[in-house]
Formats: sequence, structure tokens, C-alpha cells
Amino acid sequence: MDSKIKGITTPPNRDELSNRLEKVRNMMKDENLDYYVSFDPVNIYYLTNFANNVHERPFILIIEREGIPKMVVPLLEKSHVESRTLCELDFYSYYEFPAPIGENWYDIYQPLIDNDKKVGIEAALPSGIADKTPGNKVITDIIDEIRIIKTNYEVGRSVHACKIINRGHKELLKMCKPRLHEFALYQKITGSMTSKIITDIPEANFIVCKTVAAVWPPSFSHDPHIIPKIFAEMEEGGPHVSIVTAQVDGYGVEIERTFFLGYVPEKAKKPFEVMFQARELAYSMLKPGTIMSEIDKKVRKFITEEGYGDYIIHRTGHGLGITGHEAPYLAEGYDRPLEPNMLISVEPGIYIPGLGGFRHSDSVLITNEGYVKLTKAPEQLDDVIIV
Amino acid sequence: MDSKIKGITTPPNRDELSNRLEKVRNMMKDENLDYYVSFDPVNIYYLTNFANNVHERPFILIIEREGIPKMVVPLLEKSHVESRTLCELDFYSYYEFPAPIGENWYDIYQPLIDNDKKVGIEAALPSGIADKTPGNKVITDIIDEIRIIKTNYEVGRSVHACKIINRGHKELLKMCKPRLHEFALYQKITGSMTSKIITDIPEANFIVCKTVAAVWPPSFSHDPHIIPKIFAEMEEGGPHVSIVTAQVDGYGVEIERTFFLGYVPEKAKKPFEVMFQARELAYSMLKPGTIMSEIDKKVRKFITEEGYGDYIIHRTGHGLGITGHEAPYLAEGYDRPLEPNMLISVEPGIYIPGLGGFRHSDSVLITNEGYVKLTKAPEQLDDVIIV
Repeated sequence: MDSKIKGITTPPNRDELSNRLEKVRNMMKDENLDYYVSFDPVNIYYLTNFANNVHERPFILIIEREGIPKMVVPLLEKSHVESRTLCELDFYSYYEFPAPIGENWYDIYQPLIDNDKKVGIEAALPSGIADKTPGNKVITDIIDEIRIIKTNYEVGRSVHACKIINRGHKELLKMCKPRLHEFALYQKITGSMTSKIITDIPEANFIVCKTVAAVWPPSFSHDPHIIPKIFAEMEEGGPHVSIVTAQVDGYGVEIERTFFLGYVPEKAKKPFEVMFQARELAYSMLKPGTIMSEIDKKVRKFITEEGYGDYIIHRTGHGLGITGHEAPYLAEGYDRPLEPNMLISVEPGIYIPGLGGFRHSDSVLITNEGYVKLTKAPEQLDDVIIV
Repeated sequence: MDSKIKGITTPPNRDELSNRLEKVRNMMKDENLDYYVSFDPVNIYYLTNFANNVHERPFILIIEREGIPKMVVPLLEKSHVESRTLCELDFYSYYEFPAPIGENWYDIYQPLIDNDKKVGIEAALPSGIADKTPGNKVITDIIDEIRIIKTNYEVGRSVHACKIINRGHKELLKMCKPRLHEFALYQKITGSMTSKIITDIPEANFIVCKTVAAVWPPSFSHDPHIIPKIFAEMEEGGPHVSIVTAQVDGYGVEIERTFFLGYVPEKAKKPFEVMFQARELAYSMLKPGTIMSEIDKKVRKFITEEGYGDYIIHRTGHGLGITGHEAPYLAEGYDRPLEPNMLISVEPGIYIPGLGGFRHSDSVLITNEGYVKLTKAPEQLDDVIIV
């Protein structure tokens, strides 16, 4: 695989979805489960192509060791589910939420599971639904586990999604100047990316399309998870940190850059350099077999030795897929090896109150040989000074 | 109270939030709970003004019978939480997700709850978090329950939110014409409402701002929860059904209308009339004391007697508040009385495949005297024909 992996914009075909289901069933067998119950809309989307916004009317997918999976759906949504589902499903619809006695969702749901069987449930399953689930329940995130290794189809979708954000990020850097409002930038770049998404995928499902484009200027770039105020302004100098992310008809990716408007303040040069080298260090370890926690440990050790240990506030990276944050994690405590077809962000950061934040992030595919960066934007200090 | 209730655009003050917490504690006392654990971002927002997008790093609020509530937050988000919280909270931050042994979120969380005490948890609490929660757990939706009756402050926020959607909906009807694309309409009206939101509330928190503007043309208006394709087109005639909703800096409301472009097909006249009368019937019962299930039963009975019983696919209405769908429900099986300061949608519907959908929806406040419609748009058949 090289950086010329082809983007894919078409929906998953039946084989793709059957293969995913097959993997779930293999794990069910390994864990000796008779049923697996999925409620997490992300997991249901992964297996069926049906996306829902969670609300008070539950949608529940029930997978047995064989046969057609069953899905409990509100009557009101039956045709919606049918219109988006791209695999075989047997539907069991319920009257409404709430409903008269005997016609509630759980009246339809409970008879579908034998009470003396072993039932796998998601850690995300709401307690109220777990409580009404029959059987001997065990929490096990089988579908989340399978999602960690991307299929070639998924890789193609992510490659396409990265093209959208690469383009958006390029436009963003071009328009940035001191005193530009956060909101102007957000409107223009998200609008532009959205237009590109619907041009490329006119049938895109908007429940799973989302675009974000923002810049943290130096006055608060040390605080990467704060939500910028709408009328925050770009400033002279830096470090500014951009965030451009998209979920493109289901596939989530990100690109982020530390950049400067006009000039680089003297005090920002060393932390930029340390962040840059920490990142290089992380990339040098990106290949199948490397234990992910080791990457995070070494990155933290390096940054600490350079004198910025107190300014680390997050892990080195996280998985990407049909969400923008998921397993696997480049994090201490996550002692698993990298494998081909994992898709991760690489983003060691340094955050110094009073000076600002330093972080580049890319969406990166692990390959047999090492890795391929799917996102592209200037990286070196000289290239991130916008004049 | 009359229809001149003043809109409010300012954040909740300390007293507002203390009073909400006080109500939670009174219910905890009634239910003999030592702790209440809240994870649902909606409930946390209600009590603290901090809004978060749920991701793999949990935020957990722990309320005891007295003292300052405690909140478990990821280190990375500590200052974000502090910057938005408008009540007193004691923060307990954890290293990262995942984390080295002994520094995970549950290592910080578990010591905060005594193992031999009674702990209330939400039905929405993920099983994986419930599983790590100490104490004798009981599922009880205390905060959801309190949210059912709006404070005067909340009413003022909702009144303001309704002004935004009234304006958006008026614009939407004005621009509708045959062959107009769904996307053009969506872009223009959501853009316009968003501009108005940030003009009225420049400090709005965008995590809790959302706008939707769409029309279901007659070819699929019989299917109200399908997601329209981006390039779906408006048609001659009708019934079209509009949906304009917004969450305005935290407060969710809706307005929907059945309307026609150019002319009313003969076959659409009777179902429109029946929907209209069903709605009048519902409104005639809207006052404190009426049992909500009774409204739904009578509405269904009326529609059925008029020959459209097979075309009812949802309840008569639902609550609104900091979400767009919540308790209480005008639904069979929901046998509770209406009370002043409930905020609900009223929207009986008839959905006939091959002909289309018929539904008006308004956001309605229950008052001591009866009700006040907070949304406004044409209602009568003659007024919903756009030429």
C-alpha cells in the first residue's frame, strides 16, 4: 500500500456487511455467547448502514449465533430503518414510547431472548435497557473490538474523507489573518466542505455527516478542549492551533496544525521544536508490532526530558473510523500492538498557559510496511508561518 | 400568563441552578438515596450549565444529600468544564483514557462513593459505568423527572427559542416552490436562524446550538421520520410537511406545518380537515389536571372514527425543554395529569402512503388557565396554500 490508496464514496455492499457480521459471530463463539445485543448507534450503523440519533424510542439489534439478526424499532421509524439498512434484518416494531400496557418496546424485545442463555451487552448499553434484557448478561464490546482493524473498504472511505479535510484545511490556512472571527472561518470552511461532500456523495446520509473547522488562537490554544467563543479573533503571531474534522457520510477523520500569523514569537520556537521532534519520535515507532503504550511512554519521556513534562495533558493519539475518537489508543495503559489497517491520529501536544498550545495531528493508516499519512498540510516551522 | 411572556437570552444565575439542585435533593430524600450519579450530558447541563459531547472519556456528576457536588472529569477537559460551569462543583480529574494502572477514571471515581450506601443512577447510565459504580444501585430518573416542570427562567428561554424558529419557518414558507431542492432550503434557513442566534446570544455555547429546517414533499411526507435525500425536490400541490426546530443555546423547540404549493389535491382535503379537528380536540383538553393518555386516546378515537385509524403512527405530542424530545408525553400509557409550566408539542398526524402526511406541530406551554402557543404560523387550509 502506498499513499495512492484510492478513495471510495459508494455505500458498503452486502458482502462487506456480511463479513463484519461474521466477525462478530466468530467472537461470540470465542466468548461462548448465545446472543449479542447492540444499542450503540455507532455499532448498529457499522453492521447495518442504518444511522439513528438516539432518542427516547429505542432501537435494539439482537444477533444470534446464526440466522437473520433482529431489530426492535419504533413503528414510526420502521420504513426509515428499512430505507437505509443494507443487510438482511428481521424487524420487530413496537407501538410507541410510552405505550399502553403490553405494547411497550420491552414487551416486544424480551421474548426475543431466551432467559437461560448467555447474552453479550455493550459497555455503552443504558442501564435501563440492560435491566430489561433477559439472560445471563456479560459486558463485552465485541463490535467496538472488531472496528479496530479497518477493512479495505473502510480504508477507502477514510481516504476519501481525508481528501475533504485536506482541502478544507488548505482553504482555512489561506483565509486566516489577525482579527478574523472564529465564526467567519467556521461558516466558510464547514460550508465549503459540506458542498464538496454532497458533490462527491449526493446520496450522503446527513445523520452521519458533520464538519468542524476552527482555530484556537494563542490566547487560549493552551486549552485544546475548551469551546471557542463565536466571536473569538485570530491574533498576530501564535501559536494558533487549527482543527479541521469531518464525518463524511459515516467516516470520521481529522487534521490539525500549529501555525503562526506573521511571525513566530521567540518563546514559541523551542516548544514547537520539541513537539515536532516528539511527533517524529512517535512516527519512527509506527509499524505493526509496536506496543501502543510504549509510543506514548517514550513521547512523554522525551517531552519531559526537554523540560515540558508539566505541559502534557493528553495521550499521543486515538483511533478513527466511523467515529472521530475510538479504540485503539496511543496511550499509557493500552498495551496492545499496532496492526495493519488500524487508523489512528498522531498528535503529541504541549500546552503552556500564557504562551499557547503546540500540536499537529494527522490521520494515519498503519500498513504492513509501516504507515501512510492520509492527511497533508505544512509541518515544518518555516512552512506554518502565514504572511 | 399570556402570549406576551418575555423571552430570556441570559445564562442561568446561581439561584436558578441551586434551586434545581435543591429539587434533586428533595427527591433523593423522598427516595432515601445517599448519592445520585448523573452521566447523561443533558442532565449535567441542566444542573451545571456545562455541556459536553459524550466520548470515551467520561464526565460523571456525583450528588450527595448535602455539600458541593463532585464531578469526575478528564484532565484535558478540566478548564473547559470550569469555564462553562455556573454552579459550585468540586472537580476530580483523571489522567487520561485509557490510563496506567491506578490512574483510570474509575480509580478516581470509586472512592467518592461509600460502598454500603444507596445510589440512584439514571436509566441512561452506560452499563460499563454502572458496573464500576459502588453502592446499592437503583435506577431512578430524578433529574429527568424534575425537568418535566419548567422554571420561569426556562420558560423565558423557550419563548426566545420559539421566536427564532417562528422567524425561520416564516422565511421557509416564503421560499418554497416546486422543484426547489431540500438542500437549498436547509442551507438558507438554518444559516439564517444561526445568524439570529448569535446576534441575540453572542456568547452562545455552540455545543448546545442546533438548527434544522426541512420539508417532506408529498412523495414521502407519509413517512415522517425518514431522512430526506439532499437533492429531494419540492413538488406541485401537497401535502408538504415542514419541520423547523432549533436548540437555541440549550433550549429546544419545534414548529411544523402541512402546506400546499399552488393547489390542494381533492383527496388531501378530508385528511387535512380530520387532522385539523383532531388537533382542535387535543387543544380543547389542554389544561392542568387532564390526564395526558386521555388526550392521546381521544385523538386516536376521533381519527379512527373518521376512517383514518390505520394511518396513525405516533403519539399526539411530547415534552420539550433542553432537548427536543423528552417527558412528559401525550401518549397512551402515560397516565399523568398536565401541570402548569409543562412545555409540550401538540401534533396529531395522519400518514397515507401514496397521498402524504398531515401534521401541524406547535410548542405549547401549559398555564394555570390552559395553554399558550409559543409558536406561530398559518394553520387553516386556506392559509397554508402557497401560490
